[in-house]
Amino acid sequence: MAGKPAQPNDNGARKDFMEPEDYFMAAAVLSARRSRDPSTQVGACIVNQDKKVVAVGYNKMPNGCEDHMPWSRSKGEDAAAAVWANGGDLTVATAAKVAAAAAETKLDTKYIYVCHAVLNAIMDKNSADVKGCSIYVTLFPSNECAKLIIEAGMKEVVYLCDKYHGSLETQAAKRMFKQAKIPCREFLPKETEVVLKLKST
Amino acid sequence: MAGKPAQPNDNGARKDFMEPEDYFMAAAVLSARRSRDPSTQVGACIVNQDKKVVAVGYNKMPNGCEDHMPWSRSKGEDAAAAVWANGGDLTVATAAKVAAAAAETKLDTKYIYVCHAVLNAIMDKNSADVKGCSIYVTLFPSNECAKLIIEAGMKEVVYLCDKYHGSLETQAAKRMFKQAKIPCREFLPKETEVVLKLKST
Amino acid sequence: MAGKPAQPNDNGARKDFMEPEDYFMAAAVLSARRSRDPSTQVGACIVNQDKKVVAVGYNKMPNGCEDHMPWSRSKGEDAAAAVWANGGDLTVATAAKVAAAAAETKLDTKYIYVCHAVLNAIMDKNSADVKGCSIYVTLFPSNECAKLIIEAGMKEVVYLCDKYHGSLETQAAKRMFKQAKIPCREFLPKETEVVLKLKST
Amino acid sequence: MAGKPAQPNDNGARKDFMEPEDYFMAAAVLSARRSRDPSTQVGACIVNQDKKVVAVGYNKMPNGCEDHMPWSRSKGEDAAAAVWANGGDLTVATAAKVAAAAAETKLDTKYIYVCHAVLNAIMDKNSADVKGCSIYVTLFPSNECAKLIIEAGMKEVVYLCDKYHGSLETQAAKRMFKQAKIPCREFLPKETEVVLKLKST
Amino acid sequence: MAGKPAQPNDNGARKDFMEPEDYFMAAAVLSARRSRDPSTQVGACIVNQDKKVVAVGYNKMPNGCEDHMPWSRSKGEDAAAAVWANGGDLTVATAAKVAAAAAETKLDTKYIYVCHAVLNAIMDKNSADVKGCSIYVTLFPSNECAKLIIEAGMKEVVYLCDKYHGSLETQAAKRMFKQAKIPCREFLPKETEVVLKLKST
Amino acid sequence: MAGKPAQPNDNGARKDFMEPEDYFMAAAVLSARRSRDPSTQVGACIVNQDKKVVAVGYNKMPNGCEDHMPWSRSKGEDAAAAVWANGGDLTVATAAKVAAAAAETKLDTKYIYVCHAVLNAIMDKNSADVKGCSIYVTLFPSNECAKLIIEAGMKEVVYLCDKYHGSLETQAAKRMFKQAKIPCREFLPKETEVVLKLKST
Ligand SMILES: [Zn+2]
Ligand SMILES: [Zn+2]
Ligand SMILES: [Zn+2]
Ligand SMILES: [Zn+2]
Ligand SMILES: [Zn+2]
Ligand SMILES: [Zn+2]
Repeated sequence: MAGKPAQPNDNGARKDFMEPEDYFMAAAVLSARRSRDPSTQVGACIVNQDKKVVAVGYNKMPNGCEDHMPWSRSKGEDAAAAVWANGGDLTVATAAKVAAAAAETKLDTKYIYVCHAVLNAIMDKNSADVKGCSIYVTLFPSNECAKLIIEAGMKEVVYLCDKYHGSLETQAAKRMFKQAKIPCREFLPKETEVVLKLKST
Repeated sequence: MAGKPAQPNDNGARKDFMEPEDYFMAAAVLSARRSRDPSTQVGACIVNQDKKVVAVGYNKMPNGCEDHMPWSRSKGEDAAAAVWANGGDLTVATAAKVAAAAAETKLDTKYIYVCHAVLNAIMDKNSADVKGCSIYVTLFPSNECAKLIIEAGMKEVVYLCDKYHGSLETQAAKRMFKQAKIPCREFLPKETEVVLKLKST
Repeated sequence: MAGKPAQPNDNGARKDFMEPEDYFMAAAVLSARRSRDPSTQVGACIVNQDKKVVAVGYNKMPNGCEDHMPWSRSKGEDAAAAVWANGGDLTVATAAKVAAAAAETKLDTKYIYVCHAVLNAIMDKNSADVKGCSIYVTLFPSNECAKLIIEAGMKEVVYLCDKYHGSLETQAAKRMFKQAKIPCREFLPKETEVVLKLKST
Repeated sequence: MAGKPAQPNDNGARKDFMEPEDYFMAAAVLSARRSRDPSTQVGACIVNQDKKVVAVGYNKMPNGCEDHMPWSRSKGEDAAAAVWANGGDLTVATAAKVAAAAAETKLDTKYIYVCHAVLNAIMDKNSADVKGCSIYVTLFPSNECAKLIIEAGMKEVVYLCDKYHGSLETQAAKRMFKQAKIPCREFLPKETEVVLKLKST
Repeated sequence: MAGKPAQPNDNGARKDFMEPEDYFMAAAVLSARRSRDPSTQVGACIVNQDKKVVAVGYNKMPNGCEDHMPWSRSKGEDAAAAVWANGGDLTVATAAKVAAAAAETKLDTKYIYVCHAVLNAIMDKNSADVKGCSIYVTLFPSNECAKLIIEAGMKEVVYLCDKYHGSLETQAAKRMFKQAKIPCREFLPKETEVVLKLKST
Repeated sequence: MAGKPAQPNDNGARKDFMEPEDYFMAAAVLSARRSRDPSTQVGACIVNQDKKVVAVGYNKMPNGCEDHMPWSRSKGEDAAAAVWANGGDLTVATAAKVAAAAAETKLDTKYIYVCHAVLNAIMDKNSADVKGCSIYVTLFPSNECAKLIIEAGMKEVVYLCDKYHGSLETQAAKRMFKQAKIPCREFLPKETEVVLKLKST
């Protein structure tokens, strides 16, 4: 602020405080840091119409299942793909075996157990409901999360990253948001990095 | 009651009133009747520790999507299976085509959009939370519903039917309920049919 | 649905799902089934402005009094009427005796103890309040229930049956609803009977 | 306090502050002052387990009916009694006429319309429920109020006055409180009169 | 009412019931009576938009501190003033000593510990929030109370007395209320004294 | 994790997720960043017994006063000190002038208007109350904040910094916490710095 001539009605307030939008996304990013997912940590932050945070969440295993459910990503589809890639021709009998193996394998991947950040935020909210709220997410919501956002009556989705835009889950989510007339917009930060000191100075 | 000798302390009360357990499952069955799913109507009823119903739900498309999302069940897997059944040998190239077709097809089935009864009940509840509640369901919960039940802190699942016990979704749900130490029990009705007259007599 | 040509934009949804109004009254009728009243089982269902059920109720003895309070209907007035019917002339002294007997008898009838369905629904509600709600009742509310409905700020009464329209209680209720500008309408069902199966198929 | 030797640990606090019990009953008495009942103004005050007032109430006509419902006390019974007192013998025909007149008259008395203080307090409460609360009333509750107190799950009744102890309503109330194991105790004030100045000094 | 000709539509209601505004301020005055402050007992009463009391409060020591914190009013400033009044010239060294003594003394006065009536009312409220409420206070709020009233989103202040209008605290409060556009008005009672009998008659 | 031999029962979870305590204090530090106070940004985070964040807050001017109230720190005491430092002897008359000037000046400092982080957190909470909660603060609470923490029934204070431990406000706060038996403990971080990226990668 030094060197800047005082404005009319300048009351001496700090000019470099964090803006609400940045704060909400930062709260989602901070929440993501709690996730034990070895590949992608995702965070969500729900904000009501009075601009108050009413919930945060991150991707996690269901309560009580933290130490037992697998975090493995190797989908049966990948297994099958590998077989196909190695093999030449594939008989119907082989294909059936691959499918069975894939189904069995799925029970040992994270995908079938993990609670996404949006689910966690909605289930952990402190307000009676989240109707009319905005949700800030570090990753575009999946179809499962989109259902929850729509059924909860939220009015807006703000996302930091949409790297899986080609996936089935993202495409289905977008189709539902469009039908339910819930606008989705990309987050545009004022600050691109926030450093928090947790040590007394 | 006529002809039945009076009990000691008999205060003249009706003896054939509906028992609470029957009532809770009947409420789930009644709620299921609201579903537009052409194949299976599923219902759920959440009951708190004071034995009050705090939520009911049924399987449905997300709000605003009722008239647009497909209720078709034809999974890509089925399509693929059909191809395999017809064909003899299957080259890797063919298999890849089948997989792509399957993925595209999935966007046109109900599975990726439908909100299950448990999800609907939890999102429509009238209490602040459903911690410590029991849930009565007409069909054993899927893995997606199990996540919600566990994260919500419910303490018991009572189910009417478990016909998909062999499915991946049901197996994964049972694995999570076991880890989270949430008991699941089959419903044993006192009455097997309830007839409700909606006409003034 | 078979034989019915597909509509434009037909998404394959079931057409014979239960309509909301039918569902609300069916919920009241189902709740009535829990009553131990040997003569008339009455039910009520309170629905908020988002079309969610926030409470149900039925006529019952107060909590803790279920096994002790009498369900007898023989009003002192009836006793007196019987005396008069038998007798010829009635002296003032006799009339006084009849009145005293009637008063004593009243303490042994259900009327002075029973909690009506509306009272039970309001006291058992799961929402903070029932302001602006509609109430679905299987029997037109009595004056005691009308007071509660009005004081609770409900906005509409939907009734299945009005068989006691000539009674003092019903007349007084109607007078109050009129003053308080709360519309009362008779229920017109789409379906006249609902059968619920409580057995796994 | 002047002239009184300081106590050990005396922190200079005022000694003549109002005790909680006196305050709760005074709040009931103050609330009673709002009643438009020309004969008896009754008040109630509901106190939760943290000793906070969660509701007050007074006897009143239902909302919207204040200017139209009669406050007359002349019961049909009184009318009948008058006839009997005047008359000598009473034929059955005459008795029937008296009964009919009485019924008609009842529609013009306050008894059938008035909301008692307990009802008003419960319906106007600011907490989600009044479970486990105590209720302070200026007059022993009637049977209608007893039902509400019991169904609401309150745990204690404290009353200032029990002048209608011989009435049917009070007797029925006591019978219910006894069955529901809700203790009723007479209020014993520390101060017998409280004067409130509403003028700035 | 005697001697007063009946009005058209007169339903016999009492005419001398207490008006809402008088009731709200009387509730604040009654609450003030609970204070142990030896000099000034202050009361507050918060009323929501439905004209229901949602909180009352009075000035008090924090919970658990009632018997230990001092109620003394002798401010360090007073001590210093006394020194100055006695002394002639005051050297800088003396002034420093006086200031130090004053700071130490402050730890033994009530001012630094006491919870004002507004703080107590807001912290003890029974509603989820007090947004849009009016607050009735027996004394114009201090700056600390003004912050709470504004942050709570209340919409109006009604005060009985403004005897410290010249103080720093009151001036700062008025400046904030003006900026926050919260109107403050003096209370004009209909009745100037209310007598409450706490004894059964 | 690479290179670390798998633990028995290792389910592949990330080991470097953020611990709850670090998360709560980081949330307080993040919230502090919203403050417009030019000298010290303070943050607070309230956590309930289920380890959910129910409120956050930072130091700010009351709503509606943000652009008008002064953020100046120059206390009247400082002004006076300056006078004394410059002067030699100080007459009573001079001292009186200094005191008056100081009082006037106080109306132009932030101290009399600013809402501390604890106040802001408590007033902005999303839960019905904060009874039994812990509060994480970046700076040891002042006496004004201590009153709020105690009256709200919180059970623990965790602070990052106590740099004003010698001040009157901090000393008074500690005296109250001790009487109210509310433990205060210094925060010991696992991580000392958290970097949040607000840009999609
Ligand atoms: Zn998701
Ligand atoms: Zn499911
Ligand atoms: Zn009734
Ligand atoms: Zn009563
Ligand atoms: Zn104050
Ligand atoms: Zn502070």
